[in-house]
Amino acid sequence: MAAEIICVGTELLLGDILNTNAQYLAQQLADLGIPHYYQTVVGDNPERLKQVIAIASDRSQILIFTGGLGPTPDDLTTETIADFFGSPLEEKPEIIADITQKYARRGREMTPSNRKQALIPQGADILPNRLGTAPGMIWQPRPNLTIFTFPGVPLEMRQMWQETVVPFLKSQGWGKEIIYSRHLRFWGIAESALAEKVYHLLNLPNPTVAPYASKGEVKLRVSAKAASAQEADRLIQPVEAEIRQIAGLNYFGADDDSLASVVGKLLIEKGETLSVAESCTGGGLGSMLTNIPGSSAYFMGGVISYDNQVKISLLGVSAEDLAQVGAVSDIVAKQMAVGVRDRLNTTWGLSITGIAGPGGGTETKPVGLVYIGLAGPNDLVQSFEHRFNSLQDRALIRHISACTAIDHLRRQLLSTN
Amino acid sequence: MAAEIICVGTELLLGDILNTNAQYLAQQLADLGIPHYYQTVVGDNPERLKQVIAIASDRSQILIFTGGLGPTPDDLTTETIADFFGSPLEEKPEIIADITQKYARRGREMTPSNRKQALIPQGADILPNRLGTAPGMIWQPRPNLTIFTFPGVPLEMRQMWQETVVPFLKSQGWGKEIIYSRHLRFWGIAESALAEKVYHLLNLPNPTVAPYASKGEVKLRVSAKAASAQEADRLIQPVEAEIRQIAGLNYFGADDDSLASVVGKLLIEKGETLSVAESCTGGGLGSMLTNIPGSSAYFMGGVISYDNQVKISLLGVSAEDLAQVGAVSDIVAKQMAVGVRDRLNTTWGLSITGIAGPGGGTETKPVGLVYIGLAGPNDLVQSFEHRFNSLQDRALIRHISACTAIDHLRRQLLSTN
Repeated sequence: MAAEIICVGTELLLGDILNTNAQYLAQQLADLGIPHYYQTVVGDNPERLKQVIAIASDRSQILIFTGGLGPTPDDLTTETIADFFGSPLEEKPEIIADITQKYARRGREMTPSNRKQALIPQGADILPNRLGTAPGMIWQPRPNLTIFTFPGVPLEMRQMWQETVVPFLKSQGWGKEIIYSRHLRFWGIAESALAEKVYHLLNLPNPTVAPYASKGEVKLRVSAKAASAQEADRLIQPVEAEIRQIAGLNYFGADDDSLASVVGKLLIEKGETLSVAESCTGGGLGSMLTNIPGSSAYFMGGVISYDNQVKISLLGVSAEDLAQVGAVSDIVAKQMAVGVRDRLNTTWGLSITGIAGPGGGTETKPVGLVYIGLAGPNDLVQSFEHRFNSLQDRALIRHISACTAIDHLRRQLLSTN
Repeated sequence: MAAEIICVGTELLLGDILNTNAQYLAQQLADLGIPHYYQTVVGDNPERLKQVIAIASDRSQILIFTGGLGPTPDDLTTETIADFFGSPLEEKPEIIADITQKYARRGREMTPSNRKQALIPQGADILPNRLGTAPGMIWQPRPNLTIFTFPGVPLEMRQMWQETVVPFLKSQGWGKEIIYSRHLRFWGIAESALAEKVYHLLNLPNPTVAPYASKGEVKLRVSAKAASAQEADRLIQPVEAEIRQIAGLNYFGADDDSLASVVGKLLIEKGETLSVAESCTGGGLGSMLTNIPGSSAYFMGGVISYDNQVKISLLGVSAEDLAQVGAVSDIVAKQMAVGVRDRLNTTWGLSITGIAGPGGGTETKPVGLVYIGLAGPNDLVQSFEHRFNSLQDRALIRHISACTAIDHLRRQLLSTN
């Protein structure tokens, strides 16, 4: 028994998009312990798609299709599968009703081309799509062959997979010996430095420990193969504890934790509040903090002081200091933090001022120079200088600046426990 | 004549890595005008790899392999290919010399396992690897079939492709006809609605027109096959012009344009400035606008008024109205836009207030209800109600809200030309 992934879309063959769906599904199959030996990409072409179905249905028992479920004429995955297995399509009134309702809620009318999305082969079950209009299907066209179809939109595909397909596969007996992973997350330490500290753990057989890094964050994936989550947890727990002890404050959370969610929990525990003053991140820090549901309990708001005049008028930054040392300086970072803390009447004020590039850098203040200001209770006022010069990528400098600002607050919150 | 990409590696089947090599090679084949209909991923397993070679060599004339060229026992791409075509391997002394030298430069000695990397099928040519130790090969195992092998390391693969394979393919006559694509971008229209309007163009032979959608944005890719960029442009231009006429204001730009960059250009042209007031997006609107290099020319800053008290104190929103109609209302959206425009002394003020969820929704104000306010010159004050209820995803509701706000400003800027 093995599963095979078939991604349909000329945009993949042209290299217009990266095939993140294949990676996601591959991880999911591995987690469920379902063998998976082949992935195929084919364009929106019925003849070639049929050839792929012929090959795949001959060697695999679970076929997972993504893409080609949309309303346009080049979306032909469903009809080609039905055609291959010689099954007529039938219109499902519940799909029509669902699409009509979704359009109505957006104040639009369903178009005739959407009708196509309500056609699935006789005997197939609908795989509901809560987020989009294109449902998928679960179909057994013959014994020992199960077909799943998903839209190509990653968000929709993932939700459908989690909500319907995972329970279905588990009900079929999959996922008994599972691979259970904890992702431990770190900020403020390089991948190579962390790997060296935990070197003796990188060749364990079960659980395994593997390092990753992306956008300034380092992760260690600790994976255990076990018959139950409890057993996996028992294997992972001592290794996790050792890693956390080694990493100290550089460890900030696990799995779905983010710097913003961890800081949010700490603020709620302490009953404290936060405001932000942003220059080069232009709202990215506030956006990251408010990405957490329930952040209104501790995040009051902030000022995007992109222009110096706004730093003066809304934050009370000294015009003299701005003229003398410039906006990208520790003095201004501190004044911004204090200004927003006082004006928004919060426990903490967090500020960022820097040069995100690509232009605006000078010899003494190059692209990537960023100051973070932190104002807190008991007249605490700090600033931190960072040089992200080597990144040379505007979006990355902005992202890492926002993360680093939140990380400074996290360390401060933990140290004043 | 068609090329096929075969990526070998169990790490791809486990979802440990994203298959960026397939996307890169797909783009490169498209640029050279080489037809490409299939991509396959298979693990480090000789039997299954042979089956894949059998299928691919039957339907394609150029096979491009990535991965499985390293020194470890699970790297077996070269020997499996040779085995399939019944050709013996021979050791190439020049590869041994090259590997020895590379190790020496790093102060190391070549290991016995590296010797394996010097074996290629009789009659094959070496595809040199300047950056790593694993060379690839160019081989014609039989007439009308050319095989390329590359290591899986993206940096090495790309360099080898550019330095050796592109010149080779061009010498074979490829690259005379290229595929040149324009991506036309739309906001405020559903994919199905746009597809219906341009339905008569979706089956053109050259250029081809294909729709996509992602995160609220719709794109049409117009691709022409032509001997030169100029000729492609000549083919694309009338189709693009027709689409733009049909789409009207729903068309906002092409290729690297974004809503934020387009609005930025319009503001610069007019010498006007912008500020923002954000509630549910928490800084995401400002972040999107300042993602554009040079945005400081027109974007002054803004207020993140997450808490109602901040709406009152920093934006001058009426406490009475807040109590009476609530923060998520057209009245408050307008007051926020006017407030930020006046306080930051900008031409335009753009505001967002809404319920991003997952909590906070009520019967009358459900999750996804968003008001956008726009204040401009000549006492222009507008508000727009949107119901993104069906999305049910906090991050997506916030993203689409920010895009929609920028889009309203774009339409206003275009209509007051």
